[in-house]
Amino acid sequence: MGARNGAASNGKRVHFPPEKPLVTDGGRVIAPLTIAYETYGALNEAKNNAILLCHALTGDQYAAGVHPVTGKPGWWDVLVGPGRPFDTNRFFIISTNVVGGCMGTTGPASINLATARPFGLDFPVVTIRDMVRAQAMLIDHLGIETLFCVAGGSMGGMQVLQWAASYPERVFAAMPIATAPRHSSQNIAFHEVGRQAVMADPDWRAGRYLEAGVRPEKGLAVARMAAHITYLSEQALQRKFGRKLQDRAAPTFSFDADFQIESYLRYQGLAFVERFDANSYLFVTRACDYFDLAADYGGSLALAFKGSKTRFCVISFTSDWLYPTSDSRAIVHALNAGGASVSFVEIESDKGHDAFLLYEPDFFATTRGFLEAAANARGIARAAGL
Amino acid sequence: MGARNGAASNGKRVHFPPEKPLVTDGGRVIAPLTIAYETYGALNEAKNNAILLCHALTGDQYAAGVHPVTGKPGWWDVLVGPGRPFDTNRFFIISTNVVGGCMGTTGPASINLATARPFGLDFPVVTIRDMVRAQAMLIDHLGIETLFCVAGGSMGGMQVLQWAASYPERVFAAMPIATAPRHSSQNIAFHEVGRQAVMADPDWRAGRYLEAGVRPEKGLAVARMAAHITYLSEQALQRKFGRKLQDRAAPTFSFDADFQIESYLRYQGLAFVERFDANSYLFVTRACDYFDLAADYGGSLALAFKGSKTRFCVISFTSDWLYPTSDSRAIVHALNAGGASVSFVEIESDKGHDAFLLYEPDFFATTRGFLEAAANARGIARAAGL
Repeated sequence: MGARNGAASNGKRVHFPPEKPLVTDGGRVIAPLTIAYETYGALNEAKNNAILLCHALTGDQYAAGVHPVTGKPGWWDVLVGPGRPFDTNRFFIISTNVVGGCMGTTGPASINLATARPFGLDFPVVTIRDMVRAQAMLIDHLGIETLFCVAGGSMGGMQVLQWAASYPERVFAAMPIATAPRHSSQNIAFHEVGRQAVMADPDWRAGRYLEAGVRPEKGLAVARMAAHITYLSEQALQRKFGRKLQDRAAPTFSFDADFQIESYLRYQGLAFVERFDANSYLFVTRACDYFDLAADYGGSLALAFKGSKTRFCVISFTSDWLYPTSDSRAIVHALNAGGASVSFVEIESDKGHDAFLLYEPDFFATTRGFLEAAANARGIARAAGL
Repeated sequence: MGARNGAASNGKRVHFPPEKPLVTDGGRVIAPLTIAYETYGALNEAKNNAILLCHALTGDQYAAGVHPVTGKPGWWDVLVGPGRPFDTNRFFIISTNVVGGCMGTTGPASINLATARPFGLDFPVVTIRDMVRAQAMLIDHLGIETLFCVAGGSMGGMQVLQWAASYPERVFAAMPIATAPRHSSQNIAFHEVGRQAVMADPDWRAGRYLEAGVRPEKGLAVARMAAHITYLSEQALQRKFGRKLQDRAAPTFSFDADFQIESYLRYQGLAFVERFDANSYLFVTRACDYFDLAADYGGSLALAFKGSKTRFCVISFTSDWLYPTSDSRAIVHALNAGGASVSFVEIESDKGHDAFLLYEPDFFATTRGFLEAAANARGIARAAGL
């Protein structure tokens, strides 16, 4: 798809010198700071057609085109490209790797100049707001005053909410998708299991595995397997796998992957460790756990959005049990109470949380419709000849 | 409570010699076979007041009284005792450790006489039906022809269903609670995560850890943590823990157990490895995965219960997402189709799957009412002077 939509990776980097540090919510300093990002489409003369896409937990800047590491389509390739809802003929799409990530933006695998070795756990624990602060530095650097839209799902949706709260005047439209205004107890619990799985692996070596030339692959794979279950729905698992056996007619009465679901999960674990850094997994899960937008506004989520002029489109999926519709409703209620403009769509889907990454006709139609209306309201020209 | 209800552990064992082997569904032989069990109350002269309690995944024979290893009340101590629903003044309660378990019944930690070392993974993979076959050997040994009742929750409920299907004439009444007629894809997935967590621990040593004098404690703790989340409900977690911090006013911006839910989960993992054998965990989870009662009857669950004279009481809990009410409804539909006598109660509770182990007034009233009516129908005398 990448080749078809012409969105080749452009491997962009911006380096902020020590004089322009990122000061974290935890009171630490990240400097120098590198932000890795991709862009698709072109910034127009008015600089009013920029859309920032925010990635989820294990996503990265490669939203469209072919991912240079996995060789697979970017995480939102189905949505981003010429004629697609995030239309690269009309919009300038920016997608960054979050701070703490592992695809080029400064994170725990980066070299700590103070010690000349990888940060490991010496990297500051970052928050969603820190991620957004870093993105704002990039947007400043690109000379963009106001983003036409900020969009993303899951942890990406948290960033969208944080953008709208921290920089309301810089966000014309916002699409928080399959997300929540705070991480629930159950969500923290699942993240903690994943972290403990990583840390239980002796190859993790208290976070210093890179220097030892090893990686906690088994622990990270277990973490991914547990998390992956939460991205799907019971119905989707039953439909796709049920109790079907893998390449055999009868059970083996062993601990082999008799069932297709076992084989599938093991593959998900193995594929993940090929592309993701274990320490980054700790940091991004922790950032989600700390997310509680209302807490920054005296416990009132409505205050976070008070008087906001941003147009919101909140989207949830019926079978998402990780960030269920009730979480999106809480966002919508707060936006209404804050007096913001908001449309809310719950998409019927049996695909669970992962639905926000998949082709779902109603989801696509909603995204396209919202962006077109907002673009027209903002006076962004349609692409010539299309 | 144990001391109060006088149900002290009696540490009973029955040893079946090699001439009385347990032949497993996988075609293997377990011989000699030891079954560890507890009894509470007394068998009456007519031998018609015996109730078999079947334990869940990580339960054991210590249903009532004080558990000799943990020092805590047995898993159903709230329900079992004089004047309690499983009234030890009226009924003779039997509770066995399942085959493959680790509290005295032959399992992977037992010595394999052929090699003079622990079985480890050489132990036969057992099924729910194998567990029930072993229990039937014990019931024969005790000279009991017909059980007044077989009851249990979760994996215990699977054993109840298997008893009713395999030995309908030996089961007067049956209480399958918070269970399912087959393990779903999602349930297999969670079990597979747990097994992979155990196997990822280098101290597991391909199952030969006992000989090496080590135990895969970290892997087993991770497995337990992941499983434990599935035993609770999102609502219960939110109510009990929410986003409350543990002994601190502000987050530490670290990977310490900042949140109470993290601290709680870590404790659950640590406590579990004190009392449970890692290989047994592999075997009991596998037994659940293989459970699909209808498959033994040409795909028809109704056929499993055709013409059954057993009285059934099926119980589910509203917030149980591991074995949701839809699973219980499938059992009820099959029982109805098979012409069996069945009552079905869905208990309103926010405590998730674990509700079947807790004091829930409606659950207790249902259990008491069902057992009393069935006991009266069977002509079991009330306890004298009560």
